[in-house]
Amino acid sequence: MSDKRKHDRAFVRTFFTTPTAEQGEDDPAKKLRGAIGLRGMQAPDVWVPDNEDATAPSMRDEGAENVAEVVAEGGADFPGEIHPRVVWHRDDPGTRYRGFQHMLTIADPEKGAVDHVDGFVIPEVGGIDDWKKADEFITIVEHEYDLEEGSLAMSVIVESGAAELAMERLRDEMGKPDNNLERLFLLVDGEVDYTKDMRAITPTGALPPWAELRHNTSRAASAAGLIAVDGPYDDIRDVEGYRERMTENQAKGMTGIWSLTPGQVVEANWGPLPPEESYWLVDEGGREVELEREDGVEVYDGDRISLEGAGDGYVLTVGSDERRLADEDELREELLALVDYVPSMNDVVDSMEEFEEAKEAGRGAIAMTRSATIRIDGVEVDVSSDRMWDEATYQAMMVPVALFQDVYENRPDQRDDLAERYGEDVVDRAMAVGS
Amino acid sequence: MSDKRKHDRAFVRTFFTTPTAEQGEDDPAKKLRGAIGLRGMQAPDVWVPDNEDATAPSMRDEGAENVAEVVAEGGADFPGEIHPRVVWHRDDPGTRYRGFQHMLTIADPEKGAVDHVDGFVIPEVGGIDDWKKADEFITIVEHEYDLEEGSLAMSVIVESGAAELAMERLRDEMGKPDNNLERLFLLVDGEVDYTKDMRAITPTGALPPWAELRHNTSRAASAAGLIAVDGPYDDIRDVEGYRERMTENQAKGMTGIWSLTPGQVVEANWGPLPPEESYWLVDEGGREVELEREDGVEVYDGDRISLEGAGDGYVLTVGSDERRLADEDELREELLALVDYVPSMNDVVDSMEEFEEAKEAGRGAIAMTRSATIRIDGVEVDVSSDRMWDEATYQAMMVPVALFQDVYENRPDQRDDLAERYGEDVVDRAMAVGS
Amino acid sequence: MSDKRKHDRAFVRTFFTTPTAEQGEDDPAKKLRGAIGLRGMQAPDVWVPDNEDATAPSMRDEGAENVAEVVAEGGADFPGEIHPRVVWHRDDPGTRYRGFQHMLTIADPEKGAVDHVDGFVIPEVGGIDDWKKADEFITIVEHEYDLEEGSLAMSVIVESGAAELAMERLRDEMGKPDNNLERLFLLVDGEVDYTKDMRAITPTGALPPWAELRHNTSRAASAAGLIAVDGPYDDIRDVEGYRERMTENQAKGMTGIWSLTPGQVVEANWGPLPPEESYWLVDEGGREVELEREDGVEVYDGDRISLEGAGDGYVLTVGSDERRLADEDELREELLALVDYVPSMNDVVDSMEEFEEAKEAGRGAIAMTRSATIRIDGVEVDVSSDRMWDEATYQAMMVPVALFQDVYENRPDQRDDLAERYGEDVVDRAMAVGS
Repeated sequence: MSDKRKHDRAFVRTFFTTPTAEQGEDDPAKKLRGAIGLRGMQAPDVWVPDNEDATAPSMRDEGAENVAEVVAEGGADFPGEIHPRVVWHRDDPGTRYRGFQHMLTIADPEKGAVDHVDGFVIPEVGGIDDWKKADEFITIVEHEYDLEEGSLAMSVIVESGAAELAMERLRDEMGKPDNNLERLFLLVDGEVDYTKDMRAITPTGALPPWAELRHNTSRAASAAGLIAVDGPYDDIRDVEGYRERMTENQAKGMTGIWSLTPGQVVEANWGPLPPEESYWLVDEGGREVELEREDGVEVYDGDRISLEGAGDGYVLTVGSDERRLADEDELREELLALVDYVPSMNDVVDSMEEFEEAKEAGRGAIAMTRSATIRIDGVEVDVSSDRMWDEATYQAMMVPVALFQDVYENRPDQRDDLAERYGEDVVDRAMAVGS
Repeated sequence: MSDKRKHDRAFVRTFFTTPTAEQGEDDPAKKLRGAIGLRGMQAPDVWVPDNEDATAPSMRDEGAENVAEVVAEGGADFPGEIHPRVVWHRDDPGTRYRGFQHMLTIADPEKGAVDHVDGFVIPEVGGIDDWKKADEFITIVEHEYDLEEGSLAMSVIVESGAAELAMERLRDEMGKPDNNLERLFLLVDGEVDYTKDMRAITPTGALPPWAELRHNTSRAASAAGLIAVDGPYDDIRDVEGYRERMTENQAKGMTGIWSLTPGQVVEANWGPLPPEESYWLVDEGGREVELEREDGVEVYDGDRISLEGAGDGYVLTVGSDERRLADEDELREELLALVDYVPSMNDVVDSMEEFEEAKEAGRGAIAMTRSATIRIDGVEVDVSSDRMWDEATYQAMMVPVALFQDVYENRPDQRDDLAERYGEDVVDRAMAVGS
Repeated sequence: MSDKRKHDRAFVRTFFTTPTAEQGEDDPAKKLRGAIGLRGMQAPDVWVPDNEDATAPSMRDEGAENVAEVVAEGGADFPGEIHPRVVWHRDDPGTRYRGFQHMLTIADPEKGAVDHVDGFVIPEVGGIDDWKKADEFITIVEHEYDLEEGSLAMSVIVESGAAELAMERLRDEMGKPDNNLERLFLLVDGEVDYTKDMRAITPTGALPPWAELRHNTSRAASAAGLIAVDGPYDDIRDVEGYRERMTENQAKGMTGIWSLTPGQVVEANWGPLPPEESYWLVDEGGREVELEREDGVEVYDGDRISLEGAGDGYVLTVGSDERRLADEDELREELLALVDYVPSMNDVVDSMEEFEEAKEAGRGAIAMTRSATIRIDGVEVDVSSDRMWDEATYQAMMVPVALFQDVYENRPDQRDDLAERYGEDVVDRAMAVGS
């Protein structure tokens, strides 16, 4: 086994759920029909007709029929993968049996949807043996309908301590002759139910951050060739918070996130891709803010950092911390420790190309230099930093590029958006590096 | 297996240790006699006559006799559970044998204590096979004294890396025919010895926070139907620090904590219960402080936030970060991002009832609104926020209520305190929701 | 099994890598010859001739020969242990076979190096069965060359999610009849490749902190009697950052760190040892700074804390947080909460001795008092704090002393430096405590 991902998609940025049947609507499947029509950056990598929590219990039998009908009609043209979520619970055989029946309904070849169904999402799993029960039902569905064994993927929602522990065993359990767990695809955290299962309490009722759960999910994905996806971000209007969560997740290796609206899908589709323009950050004292580029100068116009000349030297104040610096060299060094550079997609590709050339020329490590003129309170300072790149740096920086390539290959409907943002030239060069 | 807890108590807030024998005292068992007399909020959920670290090694044989004597006398009237701690060490068979002998002493039916002994606490456990040795000794104690197999609970102190790893296996090991590990009850972190075992060093000698250990303990409790309890908080006078630690623990699902004094017991018995009065918090820039309610207005009177009118708009300053806001709507939105609401027990019960009614009326999700008038530097602003509640939110908010119900059922001696704090009406309604 | 470490060294502070062969140099083994000549604080506890990432792929066959040659010449006099790193990859049998051949080259008794080779470092390991493949090759090397089975240690670089999970199983796998995994010695994190394997992305390309990985590595070391070592710190000029990373690691029980230069070796050799002089810290509001000792008074001369008399009382301002205190007692209490004491080696030894005497006199717990006069803005205040020491505190404080003793025993070349820093008397007393 390697850390190669085993499905068509090596990366999944977006996991978008839609209710399958709503009471009181003229067309109970209206939202399904809306979602399957999404295209481009509004369309998720994985679309999840949600026959569990998003749909009232009394509507779920109808919901399964709706999924089959809507996917039969529109599934062929949908640009992402389709993975309906069915009901399941580690503690309730009745719920598990109902989930099985819903899978039989959705996958029934006579309904015409199954060719466009890429797999199922199983919520509320428990220990590894519970995962195997779901796997077995999918195997039976495949057998009954003459589908290839393992052709339907299985994704799980990790929302119990038992499931968190089960993830550690996937690498050993996948490939055993008595299961088809190689069908596993996404490990999706479900923090609301997880909070309940862990019996956590916060004064305001806010969800705990569950940093360890996210690490463990990402680690399990890495060890078993799967893809880690974070749970829903409830505050739909808080775009900034959603982005911060994604940045946190990406630093843990969790490149996907749940999306509750097409607006969140757009955010999350762009989320892990490098920015169009590079920029510099400065640490204002615990908080990093972006500098503004004006005529090639990086300008700080906040209130927390001030800089003024003092004789031959300078006084640099960050918050209420005043630092006296003897000369421009000291100032430069002090500033270097405060600033950070965020490369654009173009920069990343440049660096990859430069390293690839160096490697061909027999050099194993080269220095990448970043320079800028920074202006604070009218004082301009030139700073420049080197970073050594070796093979390991190159491989680590390849991750966002590999993700870009995966998106480009698998989402032709997003190519125009990528070209518009980055330019055709950058797109072409990004597709060429690393090969 | 489900995530249901398997003992009488589903929650344990307090784990209070008492030395079993002290040299040089007229009555070496004086502290035991004092502790067994505790009632109400001063009495812990779990009382631990401590025949290990709290008692000098030379006094432990006498200590075991004292436990038997004192519990025989006063155990029937003690309102909490009684779980003596005996000596044990994964690396020392002599210590393990001594712990076994002390259990035989304490549980000897002729001494009359065993009917009131709910179980034993085993410190310094190692790998899972070491846990099984302790379990086996307890099985033998039960057999020798004609007690029902499994009737004596076993709690462990997790104070080694090996024990931290063993916790991951409990779900699989409990229920095997060759052990009685279903007797497991509490997983208690012991951070001082854990720090030694992990060989951690801090410059000041302070204990590291061990966030991962606490997560893993809570997760194991969740996966195996047990209860997670944090270790001792040494600085007895630092009540604020003890409360902060509890809040942190609760966000990890660890609802119990060790108490070293009856004062700490009182704090920790109230700790996980919702407050009597709701309040608003405001983020002063990294630090959340409580607003003061004056005639229905939430007033900020600190120095770190200032607000003043400026033409049609406002200037809001947080720390040294100045934000110019064009009108009251912008101000309102900015404030909303800074404040947070902590519901009272009454609020929580209100919300539960409201959601239960909505559910009966066939609605799966409703918006809960919180409104307040906030005053900063004399300027008053009305803010209002919605939170969507669905079944999962409801279940997650049920945790503190379930804890309340567990306390009410199991601790009749605390009912007066609960009624005094919350009012009879709130108590009655809190007992009725979720059923 | 106990938490005792099973090799000659119970602690490893420094893990220093050196390229084995460089193209275009007059002497391709020049760096090896330089490194093997290091002595005293510049010499690492573990020296790693690096026939993997630090050496170009085309130079590695020659590199293995160089290692054998240079270690044969200078190994007998080198004061640390010698553990060459060979190539390995969980996903590539060709790489594994090449690593095996390089081990056969380096350990060939005819080359005269093997008596000074303490073990091998295996990078890029995967699941536990992959670790066993490396172990088996080392067993074969030992058998072919008539070395005692298990005499060559094996250290691994943990740089994949699979390897992180494998660490949890070491305690169970070591000692099984079909392997010699008792040869395991160091668990070394490799964060650059780990970042790639986890597919983590950060905006600036900086390495994520990977706090959980470091915890899990330290925990595995504790559970299996091994030693945890952190990966390389790339920014060689950032001495302050390197120290902060070590302090963080030590609080996790990870006492060793990779060193890329002799300068980093010096820093990391001193890193986990207590300071020569004690000092007080004060919390400036989120940031701890050192007070300056002037004539026995601890002086704060920063800008973030101010103190002035106000009538009978005081105004203490921390950042923009102003606190009015009624009298000197209130001031004292407020200051006590802000300050912290970092004991010197002499202080630590004093406390150990004091506790040992108390224990002999039959007392199990004593109060250790720290007092100081603190001066802020010219106002002087006497503060004094007690800390209760019991056996567990004593054991936890023994960790840095045990490390000191391990260094003293195993590194005679560093004794002069230790005596120069701490004084002969402190060194002698430090060697006597705990025995």
